[in-house]
Amino acid sequence: MIVIGERINGMFNDVKNAIKTQDKEIIQKLALKQIEAGANVLDVNVGPASAKPEITMPWLIEAIQEVTETQLALDSPKLDVIKAGMEVVKTPPIINSTQADAQKMQTYFDLVNETGASIIALTVDKQGVPQDVDRRMELASNIVMSAMETGITFDRLFIDPIILPVNVAQPQAGFLLKTLAQFQYLSDPPPHFVIGLSNVSQGTIEKKLINRIFLVMAMAMGLDSAIMDPFDQELMDAMITAEMLMNKQIYSDSFLTAYRSI
Amino acid sequence: MIVIGERINGMFNDVKNAIKTQDKEIIQKLALKQIEAGANVLDVNVGPASAKPEITMPWLIEAIQEVTETQLALDSPKLDVIKAGMEVVKTPPIINSTQADAQKMQTYFDLVNETGASIIALTVDKQGVPQDVDRRMELASNIVMSAMETGITFDRLFIDPIILPVNVAQPQAGFLLKTLAQFQYLSDPPPHFVIGLSNVSQGTIEKKLINRIFLVMAMAMGLDSAIMDPFDQELMDAMITAEMLMNKQIYSDSFLTAYRSI
Repeated sequence: MIVIGERINGMFNDVKNAIKTQDKEIIQKLALKQIEAGANVLDVNVGPASAKPEITMPWLIEAIQEVTETQLALDSPKLDVIKAGMEVVKTPPIINSTQADAQKMQTYFDLVNETGASIIALTVDKQGVPQDVDRRMELASNIVMSAMETGITFDRLFIDPIILPVNVAQPQAGFLLKTLAQFQYLSDPPPHFVIGLSNVSQGTIEKKLINRIFLVMAMAMGLDSAIMDPFDQELMDAMITAEMLMNKQIYSDSFLTAYRSI
Repeated sequence: MIVIGERINGMFNDVKNAIKTQDKEIIQKLALKQIEAGANVLDVNVGPASAKPEITMPWLIEAIQEVTETQLALDSPKLDVIKAGMEVVKTPPIINSTQADAQKMQTYFDLVNETGASIIALTVDKQGVPQDVDRRMELASNIVMSAMETGITFDRLFIDPIILPVNVAQPQAGFLLKTLAQFQYLSDPPPHFVIGLSNVSQGTIEKKLINRIFLVMAMAMGLDSAIMDPFDQELMDAMITAEMLMNKQIYSDSFLTAYRSI
């Protein structure tokens, strides 16, 4: 699994305050602690914390790059903010994200090609988030075809089928599991599949339980990446156990510790 | 999910002692407590606790039937022991189990037809436990065809693809998940699929963690029944959450409590 740490996001109060007071140490500590907890990539999202995200995004990136070379995921719906981040980022990042409209996708895929970045493409377009499996598959096929035409290799393409909160759109969770199973036939080898895990439990009481159960079910169906909270130890334990059960990590009595010591 | 409670088994010391001292109250308490904890069916297995299982099996069944009408799963590799149980059982039970050899299967399926019982058929024959997905599928196909020919409806057929301990046969866990995905295409509607869950974690240190993660992964792939420990509350929570995420139980903030109050 590629664990994309979700914690550097302006929707969290500690990050919001750090942005307001320009306290880069808080950001740097969050970066290092997430890596220590098992994050392979760090998501960077200004969120609602700044009125000038095109200035805050590069500030966050530079703060993080002072302490680590770990790959970043530049997370913004605005192309200007992504481009401002690309100006300062040192390691080719994951761009998070483009939607599946042809023209929009082309703009992002061209940027990916120019920079060597990777990209998360959401199965959503102007018509909105798909309410079924078939429409998700249709948009995923468009993404894959468009990526192939642009020459983007599948190791740099992440498809996000979009998970909605289970308390407002309960059938969607099951549809997403079925979609992931079908995604495996999109191409050989397939691209990466990623979800913003915390969305599934948004607004629920049993957030952590729902997150970890949904994560391992999705992994069984082929999910190989998630934007998630590496500080949630039970979530990480669940993920490591699922990896081991799928024979992606060797069993030993101390397989949890072994994973963490890599 | 059909939860088949595993605790009335002579391999557990409390049951072993109850059998030795003919203390039926211990058995009865285990029956009622398992039902209270969420068991839909009670497995009854003499195990190594008695030299005369064909006498102990009916004794166990009669003890349980004094306090509950819950369906039982008569668990023995010996046909004589199953038949001794069938003499006293009041509600048509699940017979656990037959192997997939043609002649053996026919004997068991005839018994099922005569008695209205259900049956668990293991994907194993004289050649032993399959080491891959294809062989499991082949044996499952034989089971399904044989059941159809004998006139057994699929709501009374449980196929068990056999899970081996992950610490001695690690790749088998992943193979089993893939097998379950393929099992969905065996027939429409499919039969039930069941595993003896605790096998996967036998001899490991993180037994409970491995059990609950494997259970929900297998549920994502189509498992709809398991012989398992209903006293393991985290396991039951994981199962209930997986059911809810697959839209088989309505979401509410108190979905865990709601399931348990049914």
